[in-house]
Amino acid sequence: MARDRRSGGRRGKSDRTGGSIDQLPWQQVHNTYPPYQLLNPDQLDQLHATSMRILSEAGIRVMGDNVLDIFERAGAIVDRDTKTIRIDESLVTEALKMVPAEFTLTARNPAKRITLGGTHMNFGLVAGPPNVHDRINGRRPGNYTDYCNFIKLAHHFNAVNLIGNQVMAPIEMPANNRHLDTYLANLAYSDLSFHCTAIGRGRALDGINMMAITRGQKPEEMRDDPGVITIISVNSPRLFDDAMGDGLIAMAEYGQPVTVTPFTLMGAMTPVTLPAALAQQNAEALFGVVLTQLVQPGTPVMYGSFTSNVDMRSGAPAFGTPENAKANIVGGQLARRYGIPYRTSNANASNAVDLQAAYETMMATWGAVLGGANIVYHAAGWLEGGLTASYEKFIMDVEIIQNMIEFLKPMKFDEDELGFDAINSVPTGGHFFGSDHTMARYETAFYRPMLSDWQNYENWEAAGAKDALERATEIWQQALRDYEEPVMDPAIREELDAYVAKRKEEIGAVEP
Amino acid sequence: MARDRRSGGRRGKSDRTGGSIDQLPWQQVHNTYPPYQLLNPDQLDQLHATSMRILSEAGIRVMGDNVLDIFERAGAIVDRDTKTIRIDESLVTEALKMVPAEFTLTARNPAKRITLGGTHMNFGLVAGPPNVHDRINGRRPGNYTDYCNFIKLAHHFNAVNLIGNQVMAPIEMPANNRHLDTYLANLAYSDLSFHCTAIGRGRALDGINMMAITRGQKPEEMRDDPGVITIISVNSPRLFDDAMGDGLIAMAEYGQPVTVTPFTLMGAMTPVTLPAALAQQNAEALFGVVLTQLVQPGTPVMYGSFTSNVDMRSGAPAFGTPENAKANIVGGQLARRYGIPYRTSNANASNAVDLQAAYETMMATWGAVLGGANIVYHAAGWLEGGLTASYEKFIMDVEIIQNMIEFLKPMKFDEDELGFDAINSVPTGGHFFGSDHTMARYETAFYRPMLSDWQNYENWEAAGAKDALERATEIWQQALRDYEEPVMDPAIREELDAYVAKRKEEIGAVEP
Repeated sequence: MARDRRSGGRRGKSDRTGGSIDQLPWQQVHNTYPPYQLLNPDQLDQLHATSMRILSEAGIRVMGDNVLDIFERAGAIVDRDTKTIRIDESLVTEALKMVPAEFTLTARNPAKRITLGGTHMNFGLVAGPPNVHDRINGRRPGNYTDYCNFIKLAHHFNAVNLIGNQVMAPIEMPANNRHLDTYLANLAYSDLSFHCTAIGRGRALDGINMMAITRGQKPEEMRDDPGVITIISVNSPRLFDDAMGDGLIAMAEYGQPVTVTPFTLMGAMTPVTLPAALAQQNAEALFGVVLTQLVQPGTPVMYGSFTSNVDMRSGAPAFGTPENAKANIVGGQLARRYGIPYRTSNANASNAVDLQAAYETMMATWGAVLGGANIVYHAAGWLEGGLTASYEKFIMDVEIIQNMIEFLKPMKFDEDELGFDAINSVPTGGHFFGSDHTMARYETAFYRPMLSDWQNYENWEAAGAKDALERATEIWQQALRDYEEPVMDPAIREELDAYVAKRKEEIGAVEP
Repeated sequence: MARDRRSGGRRGKSDRTGGSIDQLPWQQVHNTYPPYQLLNPDQLDQLHATSMRILSEAGIRVMGDNVLDIFERAGAIVDRDTKTIRIDESLVTEALKMVPAEFTLTARNPAKRITLGGTHMNFGLVAGPPNVHDRINGRRPGNYTDYCNFIKLAHHFNAVNLIGNQVMAPIEMPANNRHLDTYLANLAYSDLSFHCTAIGRGRALDGINMMAITRGQKPEEMRDDPGVITIISVNSPRLFDDAMGDGLIAMAEYGQPVTVTPFTLMGAMTPVTLPAALAQQNAEALFGVVLTQLVQPGTPVMYGSFTSNVDMRSGAPAFGTPENAKANIVGGQLARRYGIPYRTSNANASNAVDLQAAYETMMATWGAVLGGANIVYHAAGWLEGGLTASYEKFIMDVEIIQNMIEFLKPMKFDEDELGFDAINSVPTGGHFFGSDHTMARYETAFYRPMLSDWQNYENWEAAGAKDALERATEIWQQALRDYEEPVMDPAIREELDAYVAKRKEEIGAVEP
């Protein structure tokens, strides 16, 4: 057996970045095991029926007149006084016929095009926290330097397939134009697709335009090959605000995909019971899905699930709970029922990168795997209920994603793999270390971890007795040293810079 | 909402021990979700067929003449020179007809009887490490004080259903009679059933006799209501040593259950490919199962799985790997195919109670859940590839087990749980905190964790910024303070003490 092969080797990234961290290659992951059936078909029917009652009897309140107009034209019952829209099942059924079962996202590197739908599974970078944390510098407000570092890490580690909506808020920058700087960092420091901020039409269009520039296209040329995506969060219970609605409409007009994710924390924004929370999530998600199809039939759209619970003693959100894992799974059962690509999340509520962060993350991630998620949002770096993006958490999460990728690789079955001859050739009580069957396969037989340390205790102690948290610090530091910026045509970079400058001037002191 | 309800309350153990740690009540857990089908029926057939070839062509080497005799009488092909037994499928098929689909284990408290088989899921205490560790005193050799502490913790925490084979070796005691002291601790400090050490006939019989004394019975009266169990480890590849064989025979003679667990670390004791490892595991496990039925038809027996991989760079064992998770699942598919209750494990290879210990534990535990394990051995306290029993790891594992117990609770489905009226009664954009539907359920709606801290960052920091590892220390210390020894009839205690004294004299300086 070879020893000390940690650097480089088959899984190294030397082919791309000359990096020294052992990791899995870029790949499109497929989850081909039969989906876990936590609910039976009758129970799914009951959830569906309750959702339809929510949509047709209780209704959804929408703050934007443009959305009220769209639904009115489609035959929905629109109460202008209360801004409430009630739709019946036929409108949902018609919309679902037009939803693509899968779609792709392509940034500037077509080799890293990802597919959302079917058996495809993708993992997204943490998005949205106001704070950032690492073990050396502690917890601090988000800022642009750390923002760029996270984009570099997302580019460096193949486990991350997609950038979310602002890995953290660079709060030293003006709130009305910082989206331009974060889009620029996404496009310059990585070749991944990303989520536009869809608070209002302007931010969504900026994302579409800047991705188009980077791809050397006009925005309308991205219609058949989308480049960016966004998330529309529902203000649960049953409320769509106008900025989100505008963002959704802008994306749909340009054929760019939208994820509709109700913000359904049980006990706060939904009833405390899982069936009620899931029925409400389902109603709210389907309402957004219908809207996308009314704006532009065939718009790619994802079914988003973010159902977890709150701590009923304090009202604090909880994630990675047993209830959250169940919701992640059932969300997938519902999305598949409707033929909509499925988004869920990896979240946890720990205040530190500690045991709790690890086991809550695993609860959520297994829920996502068993739920057949097409994208696991916040898959790498989320901490503290989403209030902090953490460097060490990012590294642990990459290791966890890689574990899942290996878990999802189906076993090969043939005579050689079944290995009767190999078994028969080793004497009883002997060992297989040097057998031909082993020697032919040992380099690629097992997953080789990035963060886990399998040395025996004595060697581990002699090497400094570093626990996984300390090792995670070393890995992200090394990754930033190894990081190589993907080459961009200087003309495109100039055009991007010019776009940002022009838009900052246009926006001035108002909303974009 | 109520606040600060952490002490006591609905899940407290005040009904039993007056304890102050919030935990789930004692319960028999059922895993009723449809089992995960990682392999399809054709692939399972291929594994089965390869196993049958291993048994009929390659054969199993057995060091004990008594086992050779038993198989010879049953019509197997026995090569006395090489001590190799070859059996054909019919012998396996006949034996499987006699294996009970489920059985029970009863210690002195019938209220804590556990069932192994069907949908029942149980969790066992770590077993076997030479070392012990806690965050205050560090890592040290196993000793009787720590041994007794772990038994007390296993008794205190309802998540633990069963004591394994020596939570750690009390190495200050003589190796040839320390099993008597550990059995005594198991019986005095807990009311749980336990695993006998089945290295030789004497140790097995001592366990049977001492459990019988504790139950106020004769050993033969435990035949229809077993009180102890044991694990027979196969010296893979394809070798049964004589001490293990003798232990198995003693247990089977008294109708006490046996778990047959091949020790199949891929790359070392099996080929590196999962199908080969699983075929070999299957052959070795079925061989042991056949032996139990030849000794005593109807003997309760479990199918044991311990397939994981080694680090091919160092040869060090690895656990909680993606390969280990797959093996845990497929082991369950095979056991169910044969109708044999299923044992697997929760193991990890970390040298510290750290992020790695947590995510590897979750990989293994999810494998066990998805595999439909009837007992998860080493479910609480295992560290460092099984070389250390850890107090803090025990606490984290109890939390993880409790998360799984809650995950496995099926959702209730009725009009009230679907909650349309509750949803309809809360205005859009409002909240459900004070709604009647919430108020009627909030105390029991969600799992309330023991170790996880869901406070916001500011409160958490003000309370000392304790991470989960530090909190785990506080919890095991509190549990040992809260622990109450289960009352034992003084006459039974005297009889147990007398048995131990007499046996120590009988054993003297030789093997028991």
